[in-house]
Amino acid sequence: MLSTDSSGSRFTPLVVVELASDTKEEAIAWLLSRIRDTQQNGGAELLVEQLGPGVVAEEKENPNMFLVGASWQRLLSGAEDVGLFKECSDGSMRGFTCVNKHSFKDFKGDGDDFLSMAECQYIIKHELDTLRAKDETHVPGYSQAKLYPGKSIIRRLLSKGILIQVFPLHDKEELKRLSFSWYEKVKLSLQPLDDIRHYYGEGQALYFGFLEYFTFALVPMALIGLPYYLFDWEDYDKYVVFAVFNLIWCTVILELWKRCSASLAYNWGTLSRKKAFEEPRPGFHGVLGFNPVTGREEPLYPNAKRLLRIYLVSLPFVLVCLYVSLYVMMIYFQMEGWALNVHDEDPTFWTGILCFIPSIIYAVVIEVMNLIYRYAAELLTEWENHRLESSYQNHLVLKVLVFNFINCFASLFYIAFVMQDMVLLRQSLATLLITSQILNQFMEAFLPYWLQRRRNKKMMRKVQKKRTMQGVELPLEEQVRLEADMSTYLGTFDDYLELFLLFGYVTLFSCVYPLAALLVVLNNITEVYSDAFKMCRVFKRPFSDPAANIGVWQLAFEAMSVIAVVTNCALIGMSPHVKAYFPDSETQLILWTVAIEHGLLAFKFILTFLIPDVPKHIQIKLARLEFESLEAFKKKRQLHGGKCWKPWSSARASSEEERRSCTH
Amino acid sequence: MLSTDSSGSRFTPLVVVELASDTKEEAIAWLLSRIRDTQQNGGAELLVEQLGPGVVAEEKENPNMFLVGASWQRLLSGAEDVGLFKECSDGSMRGFTCVNKHSFKDFKGDGDDFLSMAECQYIIKHELDTLRAKDETHVPGYSQAKLYPGKSIIRRLLSKGILIQVFPLHDKEELKRLSFSWYEKVKLSLQPLDDIRHYYGEGQALYFGFLEYFTFALVPMALIGLPYYLFDWEDYDKYVVFAVFNLIWCTVILELWKRCSASLAYNWGTLSRKKAFEEPRPGFHGVLGFNPVTGREEPLYPNAKRLLRIYLVSLPFVLVCLYVSLYVMMIYFQMEGWALNVHDEDPTFWTGILCFIPSIIYAVVIEVMNLIYRYAAELLTEWENHRLESSYQNHLVLKVLVFNFINCFASLFYIAFVMQDMVLLRQSLATLLITSQILNQFMEAFLPYWLQRRRNKKMMRKVQKKRTMQGVELPLEEQVRLEADMSTYLGTFDDYLELFLLFGYVTLFSCVYPLAALLVVLNNITEVYSDAFKMCRVFKRPFSDPAANIGVWQLAFEAMSVIAVVTNCALIGMSPHVKAYFPDSETQLILWTVAIEHGLLAFKFILTFLIPDVPKHIQIKLARLEFESLEAFKKKRQLHGGKCWKPWSSARASSEEERRSCTH
Repeated sequence: MLSTDSSGSRFTPLVVVELASDTKEEAIAWLLSRIRDTQQNGGAELLVEQLGPGVVAEEKENPNMFLVGASWQRLLSGAEDVGLFKECSDGSMRGFTCVNKHSFKDFKGDGDDFLSMAECQYIIKHELDTLRAKDETHVPGYSQAKLYPGKSIIRRLLSKGILIQVFPLHDKEELKRLSFSWYEKVKLSLQPLDDIRHYYGEGQALYFGFLEYFTFALVPMALIGLPYYLFDWEDYDKYVVFAVFNLIWCTVILELWKRCSASLAYNWGTLSRKKAFEEPRPGFHGVLGFNPVTGREEPLYPNAKRLLRIYLVSLPFVLVCLYVSLYVMMIYFQMEGWALNVHDEDPTFWTGILCFIPSIIYAVVIEVMNLIYRYAAELLTEWENHRLESSYQNHLVLKVLVFNFINCFASLFYIAFVMQDMVLLRQSLATLLITSQILNQFMEAFLPYWLQRRRNKKMMRKVQKKRTMQGVELPLEEQVRLEADMSTYLGTFDDYLELFLLFGYVTLFSCVYPLAALLVVLNNITEVYSDAFKMCRVFKRPFSDPAANIGVWQLAFEAMSVIAVVTNCALIGMSPHVKAYFPDSETQLILWTVAIEHGLLAFKFILTFLIPDVPKHIQIKLARLEFESLEAFKKKRQLHGGKCWKPWSSARASSEEERRSCTH
Repeated sequence: MLSTDSSGSRFTPLVVVELASDTKEEAIAWLLSRIRDTQQNGGAELLVEQLGPGVVAEEKENPNMFLVGASWQRLLSGAEDVGLFKECSDGSMRGFTCVNKHSFKDFKGDGDDFLSMAECQYIIKHELDTLRAKDETHVPGYSQAKLYPGKSIIRRLLSKGILIQVFPLHDKEELKRLSFSWYEKVKLSLQPLDDIRHYYGEGQALYFGFLEYFTFALVPMALIGLPYYLFDWEDYDKYVVFAVFNLIWCTVILELWKRCSASLAYNWGTLSRKKAFEEPRPGFHGVLGFNPVTGREEPLYPNAKRLLRIYLVSLPFVLVCLYVSLYVMMIYFQMEGWALNVHDEDPTFWTGILCFIPSIIYAVVIEVMNLIYRYAAELLTEWENHRLESSYQNHLVLKVLVFNFINCFASLFYIAFVMQDMVLLRQSLATLLITSQILNQFMEAFLPYWLQRRRNKKMMRKVQKKRTMQGVELPLEEQVRLEADMSTYLGTFDDYLELFLLFGYVTLFSCVYPLAALLVVLNNITEVYSDAFKMCRVFKRPFSDPAANIGVWQLAFEAMSVIAVVTNCALIGMSPHVKAYFPDSETQLILWTVAIEHGLLAFKFILTFLIPDVPKHIQIKLARLEFESLEAFKKKRQLHGGKCWKPWSSARASSEEERRSCTH
């Protein structure tokens, strides 16, 4: 781990705080003193140091970069504050407390290797975020940056533009080890999920876990689909078998993923970690009041007002956007029809090129629409003023999801059910799938990497110009400045969205194009590598995110698998081979199709209901924890007696006492 | 409240324990001493007295009837054991603890009016059930009735036939008040749900709450359905409007009921009461081992074995029964067709009667099949060996539900979709609905009441023969013996099943017979009275059941409303008036019908998803409780320190200490 040589004491820089380069001295001094101050005085009790000028000190370099760290004792008491779950010596997962620290499995000596670097960084971020204003009325030197008692200082500084960013540092050594075992060696083993979690936190690890699970789950479908392609089977009996297998398989893998994710989350200690007392998100505003759950002072915003905004503004807006998207698609089909006509009438080289023009225009328009829509969706969701980050994310995901779904699949639906042209459907599906895969991996990993590499080399060259060669390692100052310039990883949203769309390509029209599963499997294998590469080399290290599941995406994938039942049944019903079984009556055919579809849907729901979401052995462990907590609650009420509800303030006071007993 | 005059001390008999009349003296003495023994010695610390011989001592009278009661202090510490939730002075619901007793709202003086009689009886039942064997190897005097340390004595005595029954006593005074306010006065007010809960417990009160809610929820449907009947509207546009309204309304009322039931359960303190540590049910058997959650010794049975039994035996059995039921129905339709033919060919008086014979035979056969199936289902579910009573109930309900659904509605489905005879459908629906309503109310309330009344009068006459008239009240001894002979109320199962079938009649074919809602509303109004009457006058008082919701019935009603969407859409699609809109193509008609049906189903699911299950203000209160419990857990771990998981035994020991400090 990195360690400054300048100070004598052992200080491991974990997080970088970058202030605007023109920040007033008094504001800096005030912020640093608040961060350093003891918790008794309402400070964060962390260690801070200014980052020295680099070897290649330039004019435009920002001098206001600070390295934040903490003593091990402080980190341990912080781990208790954030409610970290760690493994006990008896194998169960329990909330960490300082007093019982020795009963945890990996706690040795002073516990200076107990917490992973990602956990330490998460704790420091939490402590910085919960650093609250005391009696200051405004940020020193900035009379317009008002402060209110109990409100987060860091969030106010961020929204006023005084604080540019807070980000965790990479650990070069560990990163090298991780990237070697993850993507650099050619291997047949699984991804090192525990190491990924150790370095990037649970949210990232769950994404990679899901990616891996999804890939393996598609292998049976790919294997079964392969002969259909190789032998060019056009026997629709077989297609029906394939489609039915597909539908049941989708349900089963989604249900099993829930169990799998519960196991992972339990072992990582995020499953039973309570998220109910999430702090309000930075952008949340409202009248100051008391949170009815915790008794803390924070802005409140009436739920009814938010619902009005959602149903009267956001919902109509999304519907209009969907309508526009469908309208653009219709224009595309008309243009293409017109271009084909022109080409058929007068087949020259130029009309041949003309045939491609509608597709190109459509592709560009779709991209532009996606961008504009994404921007609008973020604005709207921001305006809806959600209290919690999770609820903000859910609403954003839902908006973007629906639009992307329509944008990607509307043309396929049109070809399948309006034009009823199965050959064109197969062609379009293959084209869309393959181009989107190639484009995605190029745009999301290799292009940014190439840009980053250039910057990196430039910096290296500069450093080598000044100093004589001292190993290949960059000095800390340069390293920090380099990382500060790296692009910021915006979360797993886009990665999941990509998987979601791929899942759609596989399931929605599986009976028309059985090869899709194989293509997606191949794509996912390279996707693992490109995503891993991207995380390790292209982006700033993200703060870890203690996720217990893949959240709203589980629902999205399940909804997709329900839609897939409907589309596949319709496609099979429409196929000429099936129609041949009902030569006399189309009505009979449709009724049978509908009946089978209803049967499949019912079977799907029953299956979802029958497979428990959490494996038995974890259910037992969770129940045991709850049992203990109940017994403890009884106990506590007996010890403290008298009063029925202890208001938050006194609870806080006493928990601060405990923390102190543990820090000193 | 009743009070024995025989003993000098204040002793309120709450529960009656009836042993077999030939029970050996030593077994009785042993049982009584165990019940009376202090908790320190592993006893129940309750008060017991033998019931004296009645005024009309007869030969055949059972002398081994015992009245059980307890001191108020014992009941309060019992309330803590069962985890009773009561209202605090600050309006929130909290688990009762002796130490904090004065912070609860209605706690005055010694707290001798704090617990309702139903709560006291529930506590005594719990204490009797958890009276465990110590070092006895068998019941004294019965060497074949083995006992194992830690196993429930009462349950062993019950299964060996030594203990006949344990039942709570009625409170004549309170019952008189309750029945007056509930059903005896003609009134426009709502049912006294809080009083019902006070007297019968939460399970009963929730049933009556649901019955009332369901009745009110059907009123709009009844009002809208009325003009269809009055003006004989045959305009199918209007029917479509009615059906769509019906379907959305069903979804909305079921969702709102969840909120309503959560409010009731919160106010009654059962919503947050944990049910995880339910004791295994009496019939449960298995190898003795340690419960992984609580650490207590109890029989264990592998889940895999149970699943095998369910899927390989129970499921095929149910399917075969359903097949038989459908087969019988087909025979009925054939017989009826044959009888009608005979009548048409030769219409005499005797052939006229012949026409009724198939219906009568079918009705009888259905009743017989229901009885046999019910018996078989109970046997099978018992054999599945469920650990918890709740899981046993769920499996039993599911089995009986499916069979009853098919038995009731299969013939209607046949008429609707195979015969496509809407006039016959309407007739059959009306006949089935009205006859089942009348029969039900007669069979379930008035017939048992009449039998009970006869027995009651006989007893009165005998008493009056011996003694001179001393008021109309019976002496305690006679009262207890009279109640012991009353029929046992077997739970809300049949009552919910009746409502479920009525709900089916209203929703499944609503667009054919809009009057059904009105009929059901009228039925429910009388149902309230007959059920109330039945509870107060016909049955033994049941032990209260701390239910938080209507359980598996919620799911059953929701499933019914999904099926209703399918049937109504199909019925509308089949109607000649709608067919007239698509004169050219039946295919077009079916596709439209299916599309609308899918749209409605999707809308239904979205609606279910959008309406939160628990009202906001209760969510906040629950979150606050959880927040406190978390804080307390942290605290406790800090106080007890050191060990990571405190095994159950020591937790038990310390909680017994506390109890003692509270009893004495």
